Amino acid sequence: MKGHGTENDFVILPDPDNELDLSASIVETLCERRRGIGADGVLHVVRTKTVPEAAAMADEAEWFMDYRNADGGLAEMCGNGVRVFARYLVDAGLAEPGELPIATRGGVRRVRLAREGDVTVDMGPARILGESVATLGGNEYSGLHVEVGNPHLACVIGDPVGQVDLSHQPGFDTSRFPQGVNVELVNPVGPRRAVMRVYERGSGETRSCGTGAVASAVAAAHLAGETTGTWTVEVPGGALTVELGEETTYLSGPAVLVASGEWLLA
Amino acid sequence: MKGHGTENDFVILPDPDNELDLSASIVETLCERRRGIGADGVLHVVRTKTVPEAAAMADEAEWFMDYRNADGGLAEMCGNGVRVFARYLVDAGLAEPGELPIATRGGVRRVRLAREGDVTVDMGPARILGESVATLGGNEYSGLHVEVGNPHLACVIGDPVGQVDLSHQPGFDTSRFPQGVNVELVNPVGPRRAVMRVYERGSGETRSCGTGAVASAVAAAHLAGETTGTWTVEVPGGALTVELGEETTYLSGPAVLVASGEWLLA
Repeated sequence: MKGHGTENDFVILPDPDNELDLSASIVETLCERRRGIGADGVLHVVRTKTVPEAAAMADEAEWFMDYRNADGGLAEMCGNGVRVFARYLVDAGLAEPGELPIATRGGVRRVRLAREGDVTVDMGPARILGESVATLGGNEYSGLHVEVGNPHLACVIGDPVGQVDLSHQPGFDTSRFPQGVNVELVNPVGPRRAVMRVYERGSGETRSCGTGAVASAVAAAHLAGETTGTWTVEVPGGALTVELGEETTYLSGPAVLVASGEWLLA
Repeated sequence: MKGHGTENDFVILPDPDNELDLSASIVETLCERRRGIGADGVLHVVRTKTVPEAAAMADEAEWFMDYRNADGGLAEMCGNGVRVFARYLVDAGLAEPGELPIATRGGVRRVRLAREGDVTVDMGPARILGESVATLGGNEYSGLHVEVGNPHLACVIGDPVGQVDLSHQPGFDTSRFPQGVNVELVNPVGPRRAVMRVYERGSGETRSCGTGAVASAVAAAHLAGETTGTWTVEVPGGALTVELGEETTYLSGPAVLVASGEWLLA
């Protein structure tokens, strides 16, 4: 099964009893765009109770999202991935629409969806930890250090984001971000509406990033003197909605299943 | 169905009775790497007699390769595509292994294949029409104008091909090549063995090009004072074998079916 959320695309591998031995090299081959199926990552769909590291969440969430990056490495969470994961569960008859808890390496995430349409995920709180600066092509852009489970430097800039060269790793304060940082460039373009581009650590510029959309909404709201509210964030791959609450944040957007099939080379 | 030949990749659409209305926009969507299945082109598999423009070939070839580029446009022939097309026909039980004629917009092509392994296609004659020059990053490289159904400028160069910047359209003599030209950079690396990179007109640098591999073998053989012989041509996506004969040329290489499935959005 193949699906995408705002052009973050995934191979979905249903394996309820966790019988596949999903090595890093198999994941890498699956994700290769010409020799394999092609994707940004793999959503390995397994029952939580079959995964020793996740079994403690089994009472709360029947399904575990075993997320793998295209390079074969494990990842904790993926905001677009978990939305596509939930769409798959409902479409396949493995879960009912409504509110659906999903176990991830980043803990249990609550997803809301109907039989059709957008999928919403509770992304947890986003916290502003300070200000910092990104350097890009000789320019310095100040931004906010926002934690959304992972670190972001969200810079509301005056230049149109479409004109900035994001082909290289932006410079950042390595003492503040020793593990690296995801850098967003943000233009507010209307009331509670912003356009963003993102450079993801380890990946380069991508078509979309769920946590990056949340961080961008936080930064744009901060500039407008707000801490709550519902923002539309346009990313290169589509549009996402970010709801900033007092206690948590929600990310909504399309989650589309594109094709179903069988890999012939496993 | 998805397959590739030296990383030229294709969506294979079986439609024996030619019932699909395959518009340019559907092809484009199918070939999109994140929103669609993702491919360099579509191999639409139809019986020759069902296609008015090809019906004259129906006595000679049961199957017609209705090839579409990723942008939705029609194309005459694709050396890697026709090999994958033949592999699909045999795997699906639609044709027997051995010698298999396939109708294309470029005429009937003869393919040879067994149940497994490499697939060979008769590419027709390759003709040297003269010498010309490609310009790349301020350097001039002389090469041969070789016609393999389409125009090539195959340049055997002294610099290692891996070090040349092929990110821009090479300059060429537009009076000799009014329709544009495919440019190959070639390093002979042993007896009847060459490494090549290719810039395809309209596409940019690609992982492989069947006619380009033939043109590269012709140019390397010419430099060695030969007109016939069997060459190995290493392309970025793998290795191809080119047999230069007196009357025609043959291209051999892997043709791999990667996945089967159904598109959910048609």
